[in-house]
Amino acid sequence: MEVALNNNHKFLSKIATNDGHGENSPYFDGWKAYDTNPYHPQTNPGGVIQMGLAENQLCFDLIQEWVKNNPQASICTPQGGFDFKEIAIYQDYHGLPEFREAIANFMSRVRGSRAKFDPSRIVMSGGATGAHETVAFCLANPGEGFLVPTPYYPGFDRDLRWRTGVQLIPVVCESSNNFKVTLEALEEAYDKAKESNIKIKGLLITNPSNPLGTFFDKETLKTLVSFINEKSIHLICDEIYAGTVTNDQEFISIAEILEEYPTICNHNLIHIVYSLSKDMGFPGFRVGIIYSYNDTVVNIARKMSSFGLVSTQTQHMIASMLSDNDFVEKFISESRIRLAHRHDLFAKELSQVGIGSLESNAGLFFWMDLRRFLKEPTFESEMTFWRTIINEIKLNVSPGQSFHCSEPGWFRVCFANMDDETVTVAVRRIESFVLESKMIEIKTKAKAKKHCFQKNLHLKLSSRRLEDTMSPHSPLNSPLVRAQN
Amino acid sequence: MEVALNNNHKFLSKIATNDGHGENSPYFDGWKAYDTNPYHPQTNPGGVIQMGLAENQLCFDLIQEWVKNNPQASICTPQGGFDFKEIAIYQDYHGLPEFREAIANFMSRVRGSRAKFDPSRIVMSGGATGAHETVAFCLANPGEGFLVPTPYYPGFDRDLRWRTGVQLIPVVCESSNNFKVTLEALEEAYDKAKESNIKIKGLLITNPSNPLGTFFDKETLKTLVSFINEKSIHLICDEIYAGTVTNDQEFISIAEILEEYPTICNHNLIHIVYSLSKDMGFPGFRVGIIYSYNDTVVNIARKMSSFGLVSTQTQHMIASMLSDNDFVEKFISESRIRLAHRHDLFAKELSQVGIGSLESNAGLFFWMDLRRFLKEPTFESEMTFWRTIINEIKLNVSPGQSFHCSEPGWFRVCFANMDDETVTVAVRRIESFVLESKMIEIKTKAKAKKHCFQKNLHLKLSSRRLEDTMSPHSPLNSPLVRAQN
Repeated sequence: MEVALNNNHKFLSKIATNDGHGENSPYFDGWKAYDTNPYHPQTNPGGVIQMGLAENQLCFDLIQEWVKNNPQASICTPQGGFDFKEIAIYQDYHGLPEFREAIANFMSRVRGSRAKFDPSRIVMSGGATGAHETVAFCLANPGEGFLVPTPYYPGFDRDLRWRTGVQLIPVVCESSNNFKVTLEALEEAYDKAKESNIKIKGLLITNPSNPLGTFFDKETLKTLVSFINEKSIHLICDEIYAGTVTNDQEFISIAEILEEYPTICNHNLIHIVYSLSKDMGFPGFRVGIIYSYNDTVVNIARKMSSFGLVSTQTQHMIASMLSDNDFVEKFISESRIRLAHRHDLFAKELSQVGIGSLESNAGLFFWMDLRRFLKEPTFESEMTFWRTIINEIKLNVSPGQSFHCSEPGWFRVCFANMDDETVTVAVRRIESFVLESKMIEIKTKAKAKKHCFQKNLHLKLSSRRLEDTMSPHSPLNSPLVRAQN
Repeated sequence: MEVALNNNHKFLSKIATNDGHGENSPYFDGWKAYDTNPYHPQTNPGGVIQMGLAENQLCFDLIQEWVKNNPQASICTPQGGFDFKEIAIYQDYHGLPEFREAIANFMSRVRGSRAKFDPSRIVMSGGATGAHETVAFCLANPGEGFLVPTPYYPGFDRDLRWRTGVQLIPVVCESSNNFKVTLEALEEAYDKAKESNIKIKGLLITNPSNPLGTFFDKETLKTLVSFINEKSIHLICDEIYAGTVTNDQEFISIAEILEEYPTICNHNLIHIVYSLSKDMGFPGFRVGIIYSYNDTVVNIARKMSSFGLVSTQTQHMIASMLSDNDFVEKFISESRIRLAHRHDLFAKELSQVGIGSLESNAGLFFWMDLRRFLKEPTFESEMTFWRTIINEIKLNVSPGQSFHCSEPGWFRVCFANMDDETVTVAVRRIESFVLESKMIEIKTKAKAKKHCFQKNLHLKLSSRRLEDTMSPHSPLNSPLVRAQN
């Protein structure tokens, strides 16, 4: 028994003990830093501001208004309560028919009604997290792989790999062409996997991209579809940010491509992952959707959905909300306006202090270019600088390496999970950081100049002066200075 | 492309194509028969009555009353709606603290407050289905096995095996000692697995048992715990029917054993699976719980819960409901009274028509002994007779072989998923079936006698008479007659 207690791990599975959950990634470390010292305007104004969370909190007033006006949508109101029993006991993994219809309707509307979705192909899962795992279980055996263009969402390493044993093979994309996915990069990754005896079963794209905040143009989508069709591998399109377009361009879903070019590929190879966590801002409700054009995958994924069904209480409410077309139209258009406003505000502020970012047109984040702040163009420097941002500037942003970015110095910063006041504080922190770094630059240059003239003069600091330099208000205590050390 | 379309399966995973979901079991066939012709008192009085569903629908009036009196528990009411945003965006896999506390509280109360549960050990999952899979992923590698006493819940074949690659090794229990689990049977199954080079990682019990409707006495539980401790394997206790006791005995949880005999085993080896689907009757809400005494399992299972979290809308409501101690006490005691009443009513009716069943004290079902109705004591005869019950008597009960029972002729019949009127219809059908079978018996005997005296007399049936014998009201059309053919 002694032995058993001391060797707990040996009694567990490899999956339980292999760290495959990926939570040792800096992406999650940042969350922990925020959790231990969260910013609050009154109670903790010096705390960490959470900019690592891709949440859409800009339209809850519209949702709350709808909920208030539709008491029949809830099984916990006098108006809807007579459905309580019927809803509480419903456990069919097909989902409530009205739920599937409402989701199909919403998916179409979010895509500008340029694509139709068949309710009988809507399969539920526990968020996009569960959806991705289910698709991976359906398409690939342990050891087989999916190509994934970089940078990509860190959670994929957990969702698609951990319990399935599937591998993710990066398709390297670079800043030189704005991280676009090229046929050459795809072929290179595919060939490399083949050389390593990894059977590639699919290509996984996020469209719009997390973390880039961009979406694919029609020509690129057609190229990708031709590529996977030629190789006879699957295409999994994560479109969970379909409703977060921030300018006047129109998002193009893979569903639209299939409707416009029906013979472009074997439809059995195409699968869409969707959710209401981003477009509606309901991550807590765990509404994940698999929409596959492959009958077998629909059938099997539905059986697997037993492991992560959506609560019928939530299905019932969502069914009612998303079948209200007036509300849906108003929500989609207003959400777009507000996201665009927030996007533009942030972009302007960043550019005013000289911080660049990838030009984007969707998503709840910027892909910020901080390469010039790194001491060296290495991932070690990126990590050092990132710790500075978290611990000193007190912003939880996410470093590019956690997204498998091939170039150090890029960071994802989320902008839709906070109120306007917090935005102001965050931007002010960035500004003062840049200002300080410029002052340091000037001082360092001046000091270097002075040093040339006075190289024989030794500076002796009194203990009092030493204290001054360590004060949090001293420019010498600037995070940038520490990062460069 | 032609090839791809015609060979869809070869592009999918082994898991997707190996039928490991287990839905080819008769257990699920019965559901399908019900689905295509469901009984309804007005619109389809000749339809199939669903007695294959272990649902607890007897106390929804209490729940509905509570919901009506507690509008603040819902985020969709004017009283609770100001929490909508906060709840909708909450996605921490620890779960709402008030939810975990309320669940721990409820788990204790259901167990007569004779065991305490630590809220920090409460891990969410997508129903007991997701909970079992998560525990299997944590404890065993593909190819390794769990011992499971028979008969056991058919869903385990899907939940614990399908995507994990884990094996379930039956521990054969028999009617001769009322299907009790003996040390001999455990040792035999363990040794047999060892001989087949299957590494046993745990023992899985359902307590109270589905389908037996019995629960373990203290001595047997202690024997099981000593067994697993000696072998250094895990004990997984599925206690999802803990709150369904139907007489004045007290259910004994494994948690109670550990509190009473703290040194009886290595606590790291003990894991409880719980849910609100049976005790509360909320299968649609997908509230599954893993309660492990092993810190590593708590930690890893929590990370895995990302694949099947409980909707925060549901967490919020449940937290409020189950932290109301007056309601909880009232619900538990009233539910017990009503289940006992239904149990006794059914037992009496069955015994009056001479149908026996295992003496039970919990659960939402009887383990019905229909061995004497089988033409032969084989599983083929059981299947033939079961088809008769479904197609002719129009009751969806579940055959023992789908529960891996070692003896043919046992059937599980559920009694808490219908209203009193439906119970009456179901019992009347059983009665008339037994009556018909007795008449057939008498007639057959009489006919055999007559045949002795008149063996040279050939009976010629007119077409008119033939029609009569095929009429659904003719005793010659009795399901039993067909089953015995």
